[in-house]
Amino acid sequence: MRLSQGFIPTIKETPNEAQIASHRLMLRAGMIRQSSAGIYCWLPLGLRVLKKIEAIVREEQDRAGAQEILMPTIQPAELWRESGRYEDYGKEMLRIRDRHDREMLYGPTNEEQVTEIVRASIKSYRDLPKLLYHIQWKFRDEVRPRFGVMRGREFLMKDAYSFDLDFAGARHSYNKMFVAYLRTFARMGLKAIPMRADTGPIGGDLSHEFIVLADTGESAVFCHKGLVDKDILARKIDYDANLQSIVNEWTSLYAATDEMHDKAAFEKIPEGERLAARGIEVGHIFYFGTKYSEPMKAVVAGPGGEQITVEMGSYGIGVSRLVGGIIEASHDEAGIVWPESVAPFKVAIVNLKPDDGAVSGTCQKLYDALAAKGIEALHDDRDLRPGAKFADMDLIGTPWQVKVWQALLAIPQGKVSTYRAIAGRVGNDNASRAVGTAVGRNPISWLIPCHRVLGSDGSLHGYHWGLERKRAMLAVEAARQSERPRTSAMA
Amino acid sequence: MRLSQGFIPTIKETPNEAQIASHRLMLRAGMIRQSSAGIYCWLPLGLRVLKKIEAIVREEQDRAGAQEILMPTIQPAELWRESGRYEDYGKEMLRIRDRHDREMLYGPTNEEQVTEIVRASIKSYRDLPKLLYHIQWKFRDEVRPRFGVMRGREFLMKDAYSFDLDFAGARHSYNKMFVAYLRTFARMGLKAIPMRADTGPIGGDLSHEFIVLADTGESAVFCHKGLVDKDILARKIDYDANLQSIVNEWTSLYAATDEMHDKAAFEKIPEGERLAARGIEVGHIFYFGTKYSEPMKAVVAGPGGEQITVEMGSYGIGVSRLVGGIIEASHDEAGIVWPESVAPFKVAIVNLKPDDGAVSGTCQKLYDALAAKGIEALHDDRDLRPGAKFADMDLIGTPWQVKVWQALLAIPQGKVSTYRAIAGRVGNDNASRAVGTAVGRNPISWLIPCHRVLGSDGSLHGYHWGLERKRAMLAVEAARQSERPRTSAMA
Repeated sequence: MRLSQGFIPTIKETPNEAQIASHRLMLRAGMIRQSSAGIYCWLPLGLRVLKKIEAIVREEQDRAGAQEILMPTIQPAELWRESGRYEDYGKEMLRIRDRHDREMLYGPTNEEQVTEIVRASIKSYRDLPKLLYHIQWKFRDEVRPRFGVMRGREFLMKDAYSFDLDFAGARHSYNKMFVAYLRTFARMGLKAIPMRADTGPIGGDLSHEFIVLADTGESAVFCHKGLVDKDILARKIDYDANLQSIVNEWTSLYAATDEMHDKAAFEKIPEGERLAARGIEVGHIFYFGTKYSEPMKAVVAGPGGEQITVEMGSYGIGVSRLVGGIIEASHDEAGIVWPESVAPFKVAIVNLKPDDGAVSGTCQKLYDALAAKGIEALHDDRDLRPGAKFADMDLIGTPWQVKVWQALLAIPQGKVSTYRAIAGRVGNDNASRAVGTAVGRNPISWLIPCHRVLGSDGSLHGYHWGLERKRAMLAVEAARQSERPRTSAMA
Repeated sequence: MRLSQGFIPTIKETPNEAQIASHRLMLRAGMIRQSSAGIYCWLPLGLRVLKKIEAIVREEQDRAGAQEILMPTIQPAELWRESGRYEDYGKEMLRIRDRHDREMLYGPTNEEQVTEIVRASIKSYRDLPKLLYHIQWKFRDEVRPRFGVMRGREFLMKDAYSFDLDFAGARHSYNKMFVAYLRTFARMGLKAIPMRADTGPIGGDLSHEFIVLADTGESAVFCHKGLVDKDILARKIDYDANLQSIVNEWTSLYAATDEMHDKAAFEKIPEGERLAARGIEVGHIFYFGTKYSEPMKAVVAGPGGEQITVEMGSYGIGVSRLVGGIIEASHDEAGIVWPESVAPFKVAIVNLKPDDGAVSGTCQKLYDALAAKGIEALHDDRDLRPGAKFADMDLIGTPWQVKVWQALLAIPQGKVSTYRAIAGRVGNDNASRAVGTAVGRNPISWLIPCHRVLGSDGSLHGYHWGLERKRAMLAVEAARQSERPRTSAMA
């Protein structure tokens, strides 16, 4: 996208209403605009991120064998009367009367609706198990909406529901979602730790919250450090196989939120392996047996014709909340530091002389070369002074930046030490190798990583030039120089 | 997808409440399930189609230079008071009070919201023109919702809005959307004809409805037959160039809905070139000048510092409505006849002996071969008698069916005349050549088109075996036989 044509209305001033980093940065980077309290419009930059997160969630749900449906936002009150929740739900439920004075509501969640679909459609044990999910806007009428998309009123959520014949089946469905969640958050560059959560009257151990560690997290969390280092993406997962050993591996180490914290158990961990931190809830999985299927009569005929009430669980991920959660976990003073997988653009091409034909031509060639490789770039071709562009690009926080500068285009081949040194440094890390491969070595050999991405636990996820970016003044050579063997430029 | 694992709850009985073909077929094929009057849950089959339509709409909006945003479903009443529409809108607007008794509404459209975004974000003539669109659920509280997704209460719509400095710019934005709409509907296999619509107090000629011809259409339409034969997809479009000549080409021939019909003008067309038919509205584009920007003060500073009130237009496509509209335009007695571009699956593999290892093995190999080519197949591996499968597959209406039958696997090479004859016939049409190329010649040479897709105007879009399908009993050879040169099998 050419930024001069795009619609990314960044702002310099920090908005008064924003109390936390993600809210502040999303407003400043032109990702969202508030419509009313806790309700936001997603502008192009924010929507790109939201969709990338949604796509990862969808891919991992599909991979685990869940099937996508889409339930409406507006539900009839009568469904919620069947489960007994209509009167109980309280003021967070947005209640509506239609023109015929029928009681409706804006769904805050979908257990009743999905149970109705299944009881109407599935009659035989042969058609179970089933895992159904949808990604849809929900509404919770928070009394004091705040923290931007982190605690909004209208929010995008993935919720899945499992339907099984017995507890063993329900546990397998639960385990599928447990593993899918580990993969989902890991792919977003997050360290999300499953923490045992309250099961209420259901009992048992099948309720976990997935918590992203971030200094600005809403609640205190306590866990074994070993959980932070585990890497689910390195495992080969067969969702049809028994997943219990993987689940055990993650649940055998201590991890609890404030409410479930067991100080004595925590202190049994050797001191150097204890981690007391703050966290943000981004997912919750929960087995609840026949809580809804029983009152709503979701039954199937068993092999002998007997009636079996289906066992259910629900599995939520806060999709729009994750946009804020990722920013909380990954930003610096200058702006957002996007993990590659969810970045709105992978590369920013910063054109420092938009009125110079050679500079603009180089930027355009670079842009076209990236586009041809399927790499999304943002070309900052605006007629602004470099400082304003650097500030905006740091604010937007693409994982890679290429600054194209007239003076550097003219540097003779033998004197490219400034970026040769940096290129050498870049050449030594995995992140740049990965992108180097994706981009291809020629004609774009001077992509540089601009972020040192730190996890909330302090571990290094990638590279980040931080505030040095502004002084680095890196360049790509003009395309006319790009035919030289890469080794000579890099040597 | 293996149908035995999938969630496609087809039903045999025609539901009482469904008055039109698309509603009936969508319920019977397990595409949707009603939640309450005019509000539907989308089950996996229906959602697949909805998303394919949405993807085509999105691609064509992007191609025309529109930028995607996402506005919320719930809007504050105060915005609509600014334009004066809050009191005027009537009972179709779903009005809501939140827990603090603030007046809200479920957006039936978004002129006010998008105007607010632009007035807050765009201050200079340099940042115009802009074309913004979103694809979002909307609500209109119809007094008598009916016809399934064709006239629902909660429905998915794409609406775009243009912002220009002057009328010439607004006309260019209008023309972009005009051409994008022609392309959008053509890609869905529809003949959608732009028909001049009422401009009300705005005047001028910049309002068109896009009407799909279908016998079951909601309104009478009249046009020159020449419009049906025009092929926008054969043109190379440059959206930055002047598009007026293309627009003129489509608007110079007579076309009008009932309300705008000019009998005298229609009768000037030579009799053989007149077309009186019925149609379904699937899109509407509309220039409305400063109707919202003036009261809402959406102004930018011009080159000399003067205040310019922006010129606007709005451009809608009924995304969920199109699912019904396409079915109305393309179905037969046995079921839906999907155009390839929006089909939920491209191929159905009908396993006629799921308990036979050779037959099931062939089906699985075929499925894997198709998947490797990126072709979505539905493998009907259910333990049902063939007749029930044929009926369901005809109901679901994939563009291609492959029936795998034990007896035919054993037919000696020299005696494959049954399907050899058919394969020869298939080989002679463009549709099968196209798929033949996509699938690759080997090992799947016996994909056969199962539908003769007729446009609502009677023109042939593709092939369809109609009710003959059930008797045709076509087969693919087992993979073990597939290494023979294709010519010998086909000769």
